[in-house]
Formats: sequence, C-alpha cells, structure tokens
Amino acid sequence: MRDVDDAHLDPAPRDAANPLAALRDRVVRDDPGLVYLDGNSLGMLPVATAGRLRTVIDAEWGGELVRGWQHWAALPASVGDQLGSALLGAGPGQVVVCDTISVNLFKLAVAAVRHASAGDPHRTVVVTDAANFPSDRYVLAAAAQASGGSLRTVAPDPVDGVTPDALAAALAPGDVAVVSLQLVDYRSSALLDLASVTEQAHRAGALVLWELAHAAGAVPIALDEAGADLAVGCTYKYLNAGPGAPGFLYVRRDLADRLSSPIPGWWGAADPFDMDAEYRPAAGAARFLAGSPAVPGLVAVEEGVRLLAEAGIDTLRTVGSDLTDYLIDLADAWLVPLGFSLASPRERRRRGGHVVLAHPEAYRIGRAMVARGVVGDVRPPDLLRLAPVPLTTSFADVREGMARIRDLVVAQEHLALDDARDRVT
Amino acid sequence: MRDVDDAHLDPAPRDAANPLAALRDRVVRDDPGLVYLDGNSLGMLPVATAGRLRTVIDAEWGGELVRGWQHWAALPASVGDQLGSALLGAGPGQVVVCDTISVNLFKLAVAAVRHASAGDPHRTVVVTDAANFPSDRYVLAAAAQASGGSLRTVAPDPVDGVTPDALAAALAPGDVAVVSLQLVDYRSSALLDLASVTEQAHRAGALVLWELAHAAGAVPIALDEAGADLAVGCTYKYLNAGPGAPGFLYVRRDLADRLSSPIPGWWGAADPFDMDAEYRPAAGAARFLAGSPAVPGLVAVEEGVRLLAEAGIDTLRTVGSDLTDYLIDLADAWLVPLGFSLASPRERRRRGGHVVLAHPEAYRIGRAMVARGVVGDVRPPDLLRLAPVPLTTSFADVREGMARIRDLVVAQEHLALDDARDRVT
Repeated sequence: MRDVDDAHLDPAPRDAANPLAALRDRVVRDDPGLVYLDGNSLGMLPVATAGRLRTVIDAEWGGELVRGWQHWAALPASVGDQLGSALLGAGPGQVVVCDTISVNLFKLAVAAVRHASAGDPHRTVVVTDAANFPSDRYVLAAAAQASGGSLRTVAPDPVDGVTPDALAAALAPGDVAVVSLQLVDYRSSALLDLASVTEQAHRAGALVLWELAHAAGAVPIALDEAGADLAVGCTYKYLNAGPGAPGFLYVRRDLADRLSSPIPGWWGAADPFDMDAEYRPAAGAARFLAGSPAVPGLVAVEEGVRLLAEAGIDTLRTVGSDLTDYLIDLADAWLVPLGFSLASPRERRRRGGHVVLAHPEAYRIGRAMVARGVVGDVRPPDLLRLAPVPLTTSFADVREGMARIRDLVVAQEHLALDDARDRVT
Repeated sequence: MRDVDDAHLDPAPRDAANPLAALRDRVVRDDPGLVYLDGNSLGMLPVATAGRLRTVIDAEWGGELVRGWQHWAALPASVGDQLGSALLGAGPGQVVVCDTISVNLFKLAVAAVRHASAGDPHRTVVVTDAANFPSDRYVLAAAAQASGGSLRTVAPDPVDGVTPDALAAALAPGDVAVVSLQLVDYRSSALLDLASVTEQAHRAGALVLWELAHAAGAVPIALDEAGADLAVGCTYKYLNAGPGAPGFLYVRRDLADRLSSPIPGWWGAADPFDMDAEYRPAAGAARFLAGSPAVPGLVAVEEGVRLLAEAGIDTLRTVGSDLTDYLIDLADAWLVPLGFSLASPRERRRRGGHVVLAHPEAYRIGRAMVARGVVGDVRPPDLLRLAPVPLTTSFADVREGMARIRDLVVAQEHLALDDARDRVT
C-alpha cells in the first residue's frame, strides 16, 4: 500500500479547480459525515425540488384542486421537451415523461416489433445484451412474445459490453426488428458508441431502442444527431427526481406517427377529454402516454433537469470522468493490494458515471461500508458499484470514501457480518 | 320553482345529524367560499397527507437517501393490504398499489385472456359496456388484440347500465374469457350488483375484471365475498391521494399464481434484487408490479385510506346517499323547472357517489359555475356531473352549490360564455 498522502492523490487542488463546486449546496445534506456514492441508484434531493413539491402539494392540489389540471396536463410533454433539450439531444415533441422504465420499454418494444413485422413479416426478433439489466431482458422477452416475436441475446465482453462483431452476428440473419441495448451498462459502466451502434442496426434494417437508465444526466447523448429511433430512461438516478419518479421515453419525430402504443390509454389520445368512441392517437411521442400523469413526480423531474441544465451536461461529463479517474487511481493504490480488481473500462471515454470493483467479499464489504458512513451498492455476483456524481460528490468525498473502504477491509470489519444480500444497499 | 326555504330542504338538521361532520377539518380548505362538487375527479388534500409527504420528501428521500428503500420497498403490498381491508373487502396479498388504472387494466386483461384461452382456445373474447369510460374500452380492445382475442360491447341502459339480460346475450356464445365492467358508471353513476354480475359471469365460464374508479371509497365493496376474480381502480378520486397518484389492482388469491403479467418488470419478481437470469414471479398480486414504486404517491394513498378507514365505508355510504338524495331533491325543486333532467338512477341503492343532470347547455353552465365558485364537471354530450363527497361536503355546501347553479341559469350568465369544452372542469 502506498503512502496515503501521495501528492498526486491529493483531492484539494482537484476540488479547487472543480467548476461544479458552487452547486454543491443545491442539494439537501443532512449528514455531513456521509459519503454518498450511490447517486446512480437514487440521486440526492435538490433544495429547489423540496420547495417546489411543497407548492404543488399545498397550493396547487390543496388550493386549485381539479382546476390544477388546466396546467398540469401539459407536464408530460413540456418536461419531456426540457429533458430532451438539456440532456438527450432531442428536439421538441419527441420525449414524454410517464410511467416507469419497465412499462415504457414494453410499450416501445411492442410498437417497434409490430411496425417492423408489418413491413416485413420475418422481422420479429428483438436483440439485446445477454447481461442486460434483468428487468430489461424480462420485459423485452415479454414484449417480443406479445407481438409474435422472440428475443435473441448477444454475449457481451464482460468489461466493454456488446462489441460490433457480436452485434453483427446477431443482425446477420436479417430477421431483427429492434436492437435494445443499455447505453451505459448497469454493472460494468461500459459506454457504447450511440451513433455507430445506431448506424450498424440501421444498415441491417433494424430499429434501435436505447436504454438510458445509467446514461441520462451522466454522459452527453445526441439522439437526434445519431438518428436514433427510440429510447427509454429513468429519472431517479442522475436526474435527482426522487424515489419512484416517472420514467421517460423518446420516439423519433418521423417515426412516431407510424407507431401505435399497445396500451392506448386516454392521455395518449389527441384530446383526452373529447371521449370519442374511436381512439385517435396524439401526434408525436405523446401517443405513448397512457394514464393520468403523476404530477409530483413530473415537477421533481422538471426541477432536476433544470439543475443539471444549469451545470451543463458537458461540464458534468468532464468532472464526472475526472472523479471516476481519481476513484480508479485510489483503487489502484489502496484497494487492488487488498484483493479488489477493476471491472469497469479503464479508458474514461468508454466508461459512464460509475465504477465497478470486483471483490469476493463484495456483499459483506458493502454492508460494512454503511456502518462506516459510505453508501455504494453491490450487484451480483461480487461487484461493488461506486458512483461519484459530479453534481453532488467532491474529490474529497471520493478520497474519504475510498480510505474508509480500505480501512474497514484492513481491519476485517466485514468478516464480522453475515453475507446476506441486502435488497438495495 | 318552489320556495327555497321549504322546510324539508333545510340543510341545518341534516348537518347537525351528520356523523362525519367532525372530519370536515381534516382536509385543507383554502377558499371557504368554494363549493367543491368534483371530489370524484380529484379528491381534496388531507391535512395529514401534506405533513406525511413533507416527511417522506425532506427526511426520508433527503436524509435516508437510497437506504429508504429498505422500508419503501414494502409499500405497494402493505398499502394495498390496507386499502383492500378498509375499502375493498379483500384479504391480504391480493391488492397492490402501482402504475395507473390504464396500465393495470391492460396487465390484468391480457393475463385473463391468456389464462382463459390456455384452458379453452375458443375463450378469447373480452366483454365490456359499449358506454364504458372510453380509455377502458381502448385499453381492453388493445389487450384483447395483444392476446389473440377481441372485444365485444354490450349496449347498456342509459341510466341503469348493463342489465342482466344484455350481459346474458353477450355471454351466450360461450367464448368469453373475461367480463370487464365499471362497478359505478363514470357518467350515470349506475351501481351494478357486484355479487350477482360476478356470479352470472362465472356461471358462463368467464372471469370478471371490475373497474372500481368511481366506486372505491364511495360504496362498500366485497370482492372476496363475491368471489370476484380481478379488479382495478384509481386513488385520486374518493381516496384523496392527489393528482396522478398510483392506481391499484386486485387478483384473487387462488387465481394469482396461475396468471402471468405481460409486463414482467423486476418489482414483480420474487426477489427484485436477486437478478436471476430467469424471471421468477412473486406470489400473489405482487407479480403484477413492474417498475420502481412511486413512493410519494404510495404514502398519499396510505394516508387517504387511513382517513377513509377512520370514517368507515358504511358511514361514508350512508351519508353519501343522504347527500345525493338531498341533491336530487334540490334539483327536482329548483333545476328541473329550468330544463335540467336527472340522468342518474333515482333509487339510492342503484347509485354511486355522484349525480348526473342533463341539460342542453351543460358545457356553458359548467363554465359559469366556476365563475360562481362551484366546481363540478361536464361529460359529453350534455351531462353535468356533481359529487357531494361525504368526507368533505356538507349538506349546506350542496344547498349553496345548487342555489348558485339555479341563480346563474335564471340570470342566463352561461349564455354569455362560449361553449368550448374545457379539458377538465
């Protein structure tokens, strides 16, 4: 183990140069001793969001009552436009905020397979990463089944994710309706090339449905520029919209009016209050709305997007990469000698906002970290997942968190704990 | 027009005898002059809910951060159990609070058709009311299509809803997988007999999927006792859980483990954080969960249910029926002479919590009412929908609201307005 005071690992000059340091007090911090490295699971509460929610609940719901719908009704599309503009590289009318990522993935995958197979009855296959987030795989398999298709999985490189060669093999039979991949892998943090994967799928006649859960707010995304077709994501991670805040979906403008939602609820109709006998879908992505919009969740998304827009996604990305580089340097110096190994890409341009370290005792270490005031999370089979979120995490936080992990492993504090797998942390 | 001071129309003795009067200050009332007769569209804000949401947002999200999931994770099932016990006549493990009514209707209808047609390939038809809430019809048609079936509509009696004879004719071919009806009609307020319709469907070999949007919290419901199979509902009406609060679904205990959700998201898995390669659904209704639970919405449902449980559903029903009887008496005395007619069942046992009056100028009258501080809503083609909610509306409110409607029509205030159809009120 090297000297902990190695000059090149000093956080102070890094924090002094951090352009986002001024935004650190824009989130609620009840416990100054807590090192929170799990903002990729649940982002922190912005101060402005707490105030805005109070207004929406007390003044709008409490005071305006049902008349509030006169302005709430626009939220799914207006917040979607703000999100698209600030973080997704998406022009207006293509993003709506609604439902959950699971439900949105189902709606778009079914619509994509039905659309593709209507043009060519052999195109019924959904391609995804064999190591994709399990819920995505379950839902994609069910969506393929509901539209007469099937799921084909691609074995990824364990660190770098799905390679162009592996994807080419999956596309070769010419029967693929839609390719659905995570832009940033939920475990390894591997960042795919959005433009080149989109182009590769298009050349093979397939649509692309991007899953942006760990990407939105962490890396710059240019959906329009890449010609991406479809995308889904969630807002409780880097968008700081709170536990169970609604998901979002993107549908490319010229594609939207050729797709139909499999769940044509009234809020996806051209006029929900017209109550025509026949269903007439709304124009654009709004046709994928279903039930009544979750108003408190939507305004929390709006506030979260506003804060990230103020920071700027390019700045967030630069600082985020600096933070993860720094975390990897500390891991190399302190944790690799203790049996940890890096399970994320080492090259910063191939990595999202989090870093994964493998250790055979990851579950016990994760539990012992909580006792030491360091919150990260653990993913099967042996992966410790750490996210230094640029909006809320300082370089000093990263150093302190890594030092506590080192110290608890050296002291073998984790060996006193059972290795039950906690539900979340 | 009779004398407005008719002794038999005096609200004072009615309010004096109202056992729910003591609960009137349990909701936020910013505008004492407002007569709110639209709690069946958006219920008022309970004082306790405003405080609870502040705790959940500031202390739990802000302070516990991701560790909050250790207790939040149980909410969909625990709040579902409380709702089932207090208002639905449902034992534990059969109700979960999640998603929206549209998404829940889709999930259960698809599961029901797949289950029925697996047992008998000819059973692929979904039966519903031709005048059902349009979103329900759209979603049921799409669900039938997604499971290889089709929708068959039953023409209802315009006031009393679907009659036993009409339902018998729809069931006669022996090809019905599932019957889905509103327990309380969103327009006429017609209340069906849950037990006898369920029995009639069962005798014909069909399942029943009840839509409880306008029934839950307004009328006593005994799902277990009736042997009902499936149900969905929403929580922003009589359950006072706020704009866009999550819906709920019910699956009968012995049926649940034979059904599969078409959207098998991770929260419907036996252990969402196990992340097995294969999907293993949870036991009971919880297998119909999909994405991350909307925590603020769930605690608002919990508080709303707690308040209704304190009032007691039988008391709520008695007072609610007294209020609607009183409203109809006032309509007979004051509004029928002005061109209104009753479009709800006159017999209180056949009516839900709201009353519908038809008038050719309903849209303009609805708008003029808002200017007079009376909020109700209007539904196509010419129906003024008024809900005196027992928890929050006094007899004096009803009298005042009806007097204002009478006075504005006599003064022809509505004729000065255009007849555009507002989106909500």
